Amino acid sequence: MEKLILASSSPRRAEILKKFEIPFIIKPSDYEEIFTKEDPEIQVLNLSKNKVITLIESNSDYNNSIILGADTCINLDGKIMGKPKSIIEAKEHLLSFSGRTHQVITALALYNGNTGRFIQKTSRTEVNFAKLSSEEIDWYLGTLEWQDVAGSYRIQEKGSLLINSISGSWYNVIGLPIRLFYGMVASQGLSFFRP
Amino acid sequence: MEKLILASSSPRRAEILKKFEIPFIIKPSDYEEIFTKEDPEIQVLNLSKNKVITLIESNSDYNNSIILGADTCINLDGKIMGKPKSIIEAKEHLLSFSGRTHQVITALALYNGNTGRFIQKTSRTEVNFAKLSSEEIDWYLGTLEWQDVAGSYRIQEKGSLLINSISGSWYNVIGLPIRLFYGMVASQGLSFFRP
Repeated sequence: MEKLILASSSPRRAEILKKFEIPFIIKPSDYEEIFTKEDPEIQVLNLSKNKVITLIESNSDYNNSIILGADTCINLDGKIMGKPKSIIEAKEHLLSFSGRTHQVITALALYNGNTGRFIQKTSRTEVNFAKLSSEEIDWYLGTLEWQDVAGSYRIQEKGSLLINSISGSWYNVIGLPIRLFYGMVASQGLSFFRP
Repeated sequence: MEKLILASSSPRRAEILKKFEIPFIIKPSDYEEIFTKEDPEIQVLNLSKNKVITLIESNSDYNNSIILGADTCINLDGKIMGKPKSIIEAKEHLLSFSGRTHQVITALALYNGNTGRFIQKTSRTEVNFAKLSSEEIDWYLGTLEWQDVAGSYRIQEKGSLLINSISGSWYNVIGLPIRLFYGMVASQGLSFFRP
């Protein structure tokens, strides 16, 4: 079976690959992630691909590998929400989500070393937050789940208590839309998902 | 803190309550679940409430308890899909879902022993299955996840590989829409979710 290289340091993406028993190794790319005012989808498409290119350029051994780059952003009315720098910023994120719908966009860039080509896809999930009381926000901030995660919530942990509904892929909100990835892999005749 | 009684033998509902650190004990009701051709939502509303009533009638100690009844059904074009009796029936379920959207409906019945009243709510999630190849179906049947679960798939396990997108609550598809439950609990001034 082929072995996948994950060009991402996100522990959440690694957990998803593990859950689906996909053999992989992690080689985080040192491509620096900076968001601008450009269209969010174009930005994550570029970032996910550039992560892989930076890795390939760092060592020619990677030329023949299968490499996955991924990038996720949270978009509220055209503004990209990153990781909070403080609990104050986390509170601002939650307040701005309260009672509204935002989008989570993930771009996947799969480099197939057998062909030297990239395949790129994006997944978009709408997340509708409940109208939160200040007591609920303070309780959630106390869980510390806001730390080190874009948008300051974790849908896979207690963050689900804040969310009425989603529309799209659940795994996309965590950082790796698994069915989309599966389809990309299958289109290349690769077999990570077969026992 | 109040302690919740879960009137359901579903291990999946118990897992969700554990994940959210809700103190509870399990007292499965022996109310027999039989689906008819009635409206699915009305059926799950009745079943979830009857599970609690059967428990209360079995022992007057339960009169003052807080009890959760829940019932989930899968609805494809007005037909309710139960648990498969064999791998052949599981295959039929997956074939009928392939490339289409079905609904998962859960009814919650919360009995508040402090007031002697019921609160009832339903949650509805649309689940869109990918168009599945026969190879994919055979692979999924081989995971044995189809056993003992309505609709023959588990969204919380490898079943996610079969699903393009959902619209609604993810936890509803597993059997307990957690934000809806949280809202019902909060409306009664109960505090299961607070540490």
